[in-house]
Amino acid sequence: MQYQAPERDAQFLIFDVFRAQDVWQEIPALADFGPDIIQAVVNEGGRIAAEAIAPTNEVGDAEGCAWNDGEVTTPAVFKPAFQQLAEGGWLGLAGNPEFGGQGMPKMLACLVEEMLWAANPSLYLYGTLTVGASLCIDAHGTEAQKSRYLPKMYGGEWTGAMALTEAHAGTDLGIMRSKAEPQADGSYHITGTKIFITGGEHDLTENIVHLVLAKLPDAPGGTRGISLFIVPKFLVNEDGSLGERNRWASGSIEHKMGIRGSATSVINYDGAIGYLLGEENQGLAAMFTMMNYERLSVGLQGLGAGEAAYQLAAGYARDRLQGRSPEGAQNPDGPADSLLVHPDVRRMLMTQRAFNEAGRAFGLFVGMQLDRAKYGNDAEAQTLSEILTPIAKAFLSDRGFTGSVLAQQVFGGHGYIQEWGVEQVVRDTRIAQIYEGTNGVQALDLIARKVLRDGGVSLRRFIDEMAQSDVAAEFQAELNDALDRLVRVTASVVERAEAEPALAGAVSVDYLDLCGLTIYAWLWALMARHAPDDEFGAAKLATARYYFARVLPASHGLERGIAASSSAVMDLAADQF
Amino acid sequence: MQYQAPERDAQFLIFDVFRAQDVWQEIPALADFGPDIIQAVVNEGGRIAAEAIAPTNEVGDAEGCAWNDGEVTTPAVFKPAFQQLAEGGWLGLAGNPEFGGQGMPKMLACLVEEMLWAANPSLYLYGTLTVGASLCIDAHGTEAQKSRYLPKMYGGEWTGAMALTEAHAGTDLGIMRSKAEPQADGSYHITGTKIFITGGEHDLTENIVHLVLAKLPDAPGGTRGISLFIVPKFLVNEDGSLGERNRWASGSIEHKMGIRGSATSVINYDGAIGYLLGEENQGLAAMFTMMNYERLSVGLQGLGAGEAAYQLAAGYARDRLQGRSPEGAQNPDGPADSLLVHPDVRRMLMTQRAFNEAGRAFGLFVGMQLDRAKYGNDAEAQTLSEILTPIAKAFLSDRGFTGSVLAQQVFGGHGYIQEWGVEQVVRDTRIAQIYEGTNGVQALDLIARKVLRDGGVSLRRFIDEMAQSDVAAEFQAELNDALDRLVRVTASVVERAEAEPALAGAVSVDYLDLCGLTIYAWLWALMARHAPDDEFGAAKLATARYYFARVLPASHGLERGIAASSSAVMDLAADQF
Repeated sequence: MQYQAPERDAQFLIFDVFRAQDVWQEIPALADFGPDIIQAVVNEGGRIAAEAIAPTNEVGDAEGCAWNDGEVTTPAVFKPAFQQLAEGGWLGLAGNPEFGGQGMPKMLACLVEEMLWAANPSLYLYGTLTVGASLCIDAHGTEAQKSRYLPKMYGGEWTGAMALTEAHAGTDLGIMRSKAEPQADGSYHITGTKIFITGGEHDLTENIVHLVLAKLPDAPGGTRGISLFIVPKFLVNEDGSLGERNRWASGSIEHKMGIRGSATSVINYDGAIGYLLGEENQGLAAMFTMMNYERLSVGLQGLGAGEAAYQLAAGYARDRLQGRSPEGAQNPDGPADSLLVHPDVRRMLMTQRAFNEAGRAFGLFVGMQLDRAKYGNDAEAQTLSEILTPIAKAFLSDRGFTGSVLAQQVFGGHGYIQEWGVEQVVRDTRIAQIYEGTNGVQALDLIARKVLRDGGVSLRRFIDEMAQSDVAAEFQAELNDALDRLVRVTASVVERAEAEPALAGAVSVDYLDLCGLTIYAWLWALMARHAPDDEFGAAKLATARYYFARVLPASHGLERGIAASSSAVMDLAADQF
Repeated sequence: MQYQAPERDAQFLIFDVFRAQDVWQEIPALADFGPDIIQAVVNEGGRIAAEAIAPTNEVGDAEGCAWNDGEVTTPAVFKPAFQQLAEGGWLGLAGNPEFGGQGMPKMLACLVEEMLWAANPSLYLYGTLTVGASLCIDAHGTEAQKSRYLPKMYGGEWTGAMALTEAHAGTDLGIMRSKAEPQADGSYHITGTKIFITGGEHDLTENIVHLVLAKLPDAPGGTRGISLFIVPKFLVNEDGSLGERNRWASGSIEHKMGIRGSATSVINYDGAIGYLLGEENQGLAAMFTMMNYERLSVGLQGLGAGEAAYQLAAGYARDRLQGRSPEGAQNPDGPADSLLVHPDVRRMLMTQRAFNEAGRAFGLFVGMQLDRAKYGNDAEAQTLSEILTPIAKAFLSDRGFTGSVLAQQVFGGHGYIQEWGVEQVVRDTRIAQIYEGTNGVQALDLIARKVLRDGGVSLRRFIDEMAQSDVAAEFQAELNDALDRLVRVTASVVERAEAEPALAGAVSVDYLDLCGLTIYAWLWALMARHAPDDEFGAAKLATARYYFARVLPASHGLERGIAASSSAVMDLAADQF
């Protein structure tokens, strides 16, 4: 795959649209990050993604992972590529500088993550879990834990993994059975079987740090009785060197639709030694530090996939000659015109552009709120980031999948065969809608926890901010209309939800889509306002117009669907399914 | 896969909703098909699909096809299964009785096809191409050709294949290069390379009958200079026995996202002996006899997939215990409630039901028009079938894919791993949106050839028929609203298309979706009218209500998107893609 990192777009968003340089200036921890450093990170991140990582993507899918008596082998090209990622410090980009991280803004990290996901999602999964686990250890670990694990993880010498799911307990973590027995030395013995453990076992690094959810013997029932443990593959000696092998092993790996270079293990913990991370019985909340990071990251996986697929499709459409323009031959001396003359091919490509470019802006905007919250102690930004995280996870990954499918469609029959690469993007991206909490779970989190819980007040604050921001005049009226619709729909859901317990779940996915479409409308109006007077800017304006004309109208249908009673969903007798 | 043929639904649609028995009574060729025969065919078709074909589906995907020096091997389980299909006479179900076909109504054949597609699309591809090629030979062949090929093809002793595409000529057939040189004995020598030839070479039968498009030496340019030829793998002697091997061979097979049990060949014709089918230079029109058959059939592939995926998802949702109902625990003695209590899981399952059941009705309705046209010489039915064919191909396959993806989502993480079977349905179904003319091509065919060409008059006649039919009173107003919308949107497109050459292509896919959603609304109102007063009928009513409340509203967004100028799609400079 010939991947080109979206550097021009990144500059435009960071410097012109969001003026991040000004925001960072006001936050002491980020004040050192001037335009030069930012530019260097973007360029270098783009380079490593395109040159070191992307070439391993197709071959990794073809080779896949292998399991042999507990040992897991990744595709041969992965190890050197991961090493480049590790040695470049990319896994510690936003890490805590006290322990070897680079302390860069999350906003920048979001951009780099998009590029790495686009280049090879299977490979970057080992990375994102390492970043997320180190974030969790940094937030909840003791000083000793931080200094023991973080430098190795920021440096990519050890990777991380997250062990939540059990065969009978997926979304419903409260019914998990894994046990943690306290030992005299303060450690715990962990016993149980976890499934779907991404990067749980592999051959890329010398150690793997599992964060494992388990229950103490006297724990309360349900999710209030879950604790979190650090359970490394090799125990770590006082001097930081590796000690004996811990008592857990990969029981098998899954055969999956895609992300075949990413090893997904069943892990059997057989009295494995674990160390409590955070407080007893507070494990789920601690794990959510990692989970929320992964949710945004998985959204960025969708974005990266959407961009990679678009680049493949646009390249094919430029080169492939088929048929003639409805406006008269554009390539009269050739046997046919390029696919780009066909309005429906353009519709597919424009839809992808409209989603990708707004999606990139959205990801950076969420990253900016996380920076404000973490480094600027901005409580409003914290609340906003909590509202936006499920939208980012679900809306970005859904649009990424839809975009990949559209890209495949541009290829016609060639899109269905492996050699063109786009079918792999479709297969790889599908998982982003499922893992780290299915997109249905994200939608329920949004509507139930983030909107209904405060009667929609926090969301309303954000809607008002969007309404008051300085956007392109051309789109102001349509944006206002979209924002009014979201206000109206939210008020209606808040009002009806009390009497109708099934309502929130019945409309949640449509409601999340409406939020996403509306936020993207705002971002397009904002980007159009800052579009420069050149070809790049003209393309932005054309894409903004496409979005308002052809994509946003779906919100009218969503509003009507959400207005329906939940009985439409619930009335069928259970035994009729 | 545990597939259950939708026999109860089939009875309801044939006997109660469409009253096919009355229609057939008035058509001499079909008057013999009474309820008993119909019932027997439906039951026996369901049985063979579920018991003989479905068990070969997963193993066929895992084993795939192999190519070795021109020889193509299909999965080992395919040969005995295909033989059962052949010996049961299923490929001659709607075939010409003069040559060994059973002459049954197309409507019935549609139902059986759905079942065979659901059971194993890779395997049934060898069947559908045989049925389509024999239909083409029956329509355009000489008596000698018919008696030579049809009995063997109806009996499944020989299969058919369709050779159109060349590497540089996919949708744009006018630029094909394959040559046909006339010989003194009346035959032709065919030379050229065709790609994407489904079932072009395989080991299931002793002979394979290719229908090949090629150009005569003095042919006019473009699509008016294409002729159609019968090019069998083994030449056929006067006595019907097989003679020498023809001069063509499989150069390779494709590695595909799905339908891996279906061998897709590159075929090299090296002066192969061919026999003109129909008239010189009229090949494309003749091929469209086969193509139109395949288009409806591929729509039915989507329908079958949607049904198979739904059955998998509903089964999983019934069995899987996760979380609690928002309306209070439904399984208080168990560790959790079933997935069916969750409104969003129900939304996904209801959407699948709403599409599948309306889709089945739609397929049968199109089949009925084809019966009226072919056996009743009904010109209006012929015109209507031409309007509906692209909608059936695209809307059924799009909904089949969407439904499969929703079914996969119901499974959560388990949907992404191979052992549950649903990810295979997603991979297999994706091709239905691409082959036999991409769904974008279908949409352009609908809007440009079937609607704009007569100013929307024929479509309007059908809309008026829908408006005047006897539907459930509960949905009459909403149906009228939807029909009015389609009238309004069609008039607007007809009016604007003259001044805007890119308009048809710019709105074609949204327009086809609007047609599909509207026709499904009519079918749901019609089914609701005939729903019996029992549990089956109650489920129909509940699903009809779901469709009107939650699915049909998307038409509001489509109307607004179609209202946009084509400049939204066309304005981006070509070099900006």
